[in-house]
Amino acid sequence: MTHISIIGTGNMGQAISAIAAKGDNSVELFGKTDLDKPVTGDIVVLAVPYPAVDQVLAQRAGQLDDKIVVDITNPLNFETYDSLTVPADSSAAAEIAAKLPRSRVVKAFNTTFAGTLAEGTVGPLTTTVLIAGDDADAKAALAGVVTAAGLKAVDAGSLHRAREMEAVGFLQISLAANEKLPWSGGFGVVN
Amino acid sequence: MTHISIIGTGNMGQAISAIAAKGDNSVELFGKTDLDKPVTGDIVVLAVPYPAVDQVLAQRAGQLDDKIVVDITNPLNFETYDSLTVPADSSAAAEIAAKLPRSRVVKAFNTTFAGTLAEGTVGPLTTTVLIAGDDADAKAALAGVVTAAGLKAVDAGSLHRAREMEAVGFLQISLAANEKLPWSGGFGVVN
Repeated sequence: MTHISIIGTGNMGQAISAIAAKGDNSVELFGKTDLDKPVTGDIVVLAVPYPAVDQVLAQRAGQLDDKIVVDITNPLNFETYDSLTVPADSSAAAEIAAKLPRSRVVKAFNTTFAGTLAEGTVGPLTTTVLIAGDDADAKAALAGVVTAAGLKAVDAGSLHRAREMEAVGFLQISLAANEKLPWSGGFGVVN
Repeated sequence: MTHISIIGTGNMGQAISAIAAKGDNSVELFGKTDLDKPVTGDIVVLAVPYPAVDQVLAQRAGQLDDKIVVDITNPLNFETYDSLTVPADSSAAAEIAAKLPRSRVVKAFNTTFAGTLAEGTVGPLTTTVLIAGDDADAKAALAGVVTAAGLKAVDAGSLHRAREMEAVGFLQISLAANEKLPWSGGFGVVN
């Protein structure tokens, strides 16, 4: 049984909670008023917008040590929708990993909209969660959670690939915001 | 009727030729031995690997003026499969556009494998060609060619979005090279 803590109660946090609850896991969801409750999950999902991550890391200092920390963010400039707010050769995941040297950071869930995560499908396809990270065991643990819920998981490579995954997320959000794609659709993976 | 010139006879050049030939277009395919034949298409597709583009631009100096030039490249470092060879905040398309100030450069076809272009499907989905560029008429002209062949076209935004499209292409190639995806599959678009 995996103990999973999810920080953030927005639509992504709720969708990931529902996925985690489908498997043989214990799931705790942390909202903004749960600051006194320590994070104890083996897997901790940072399901907050990228600008809120630093505050969460400060609030949870030490609590993320030795844990698998899942970054789901798409660090868009939401004023222009024309760039990311992280350095072009880096990624939100790399920035977070640098701040959490005692954690195993993986990137996941940023290439799927909340709707397709909750549905388990993207059109005719089973929703696929791409997972990038430098620790094979951490990626396998998260993949186990995803597949137990009936979704597919694909190992996207090292944490370097978070740069490309965030570009996928950025492009997909840009297309949906411009009504070129529905929020119920987007990129699916045929494998 | 659109006159389309395709430079490059590899699997991508052939797949794009077949697509163009399905509509009411005239299509000319240029191989390495066709240097004496001038490029005359309204739309010119640079269907060569990124490292070969500069040579093509030199060989075709002046011939691409006033034309719609389609960049399909994925500028991977094919030795490491771990990075792109263009600056992280730029794209192959932006580099090419800077060298062709008299052309209207669009990015397209780099997020679909040759197999799914030729088939017209990615698994259960119709193959979708993402098209980015700064000239709406140029994008519409290429979209017309794509949709006349029974594929879908999606306007991916300005040429800035080529950075993200190249990240999509990079990630997709990386996944296929690592056998996480088949070359007959990959990313599909549900819209």
